[in-house]
Amino acid sequence: MVSKAVFYHAGCEVCNAAEKQVASALDPQRYNVEIVHLGQSKDRLEEAERYGVKSVPALVIDGQPFHINHGADLSQLR
Amino acid sequence: MVSKAVFYHAGCEVCNAAEKQVASALDPQRYNVEIVHLGQSKDRLEEAERYGVKSVPALVIDGQPFHINHGADLSQLR
Repeated sequence: MVSKAVFYHAGCEVCNAAEKQVASALDPQRYNVEIVHLGQSKDRLEEAERYGVKSVPALVIDGQPFHINHGADLSQLR
Repeated sequence: MVSKAVFYHAGCEVCNAAEKQVASALDPQRYNVEIVHLGQSKDRLEEAERYGVKSVPALVIDGQPFHINHGADLSQLR
């Protein structure tokens, strides 16, 4: 079964490193990773907040938020 | 080619969630993930610091540190 994962970012340098090294390192046989740029898709901000995302980059796996290093707070993207 | 990844933790709840959901989600065809408990293996603290690890849980992929949420600072483990 393939689980859903969402990687939220804002195009920052810290975000890019996390996308390249962590989000894309997930097992494609088990995870379908959607990449969401919250600076460009502000309509997804509420969804990210519902998952408990406070800052980007963040990876939500099976509904659980994992903040990876720190690029920007979500409040800065509004 | 299989890259090396190291997941540093200290047995904390935040660490356990990150181990279960992130470290074990990496693609086994591309990453060989070593799990290191820094509370039990204090001789690995310096190595973690050399990678730039400041807190646990942290995942080092291809030599780059990614702090995942925040369980404990490394200084608390000495």
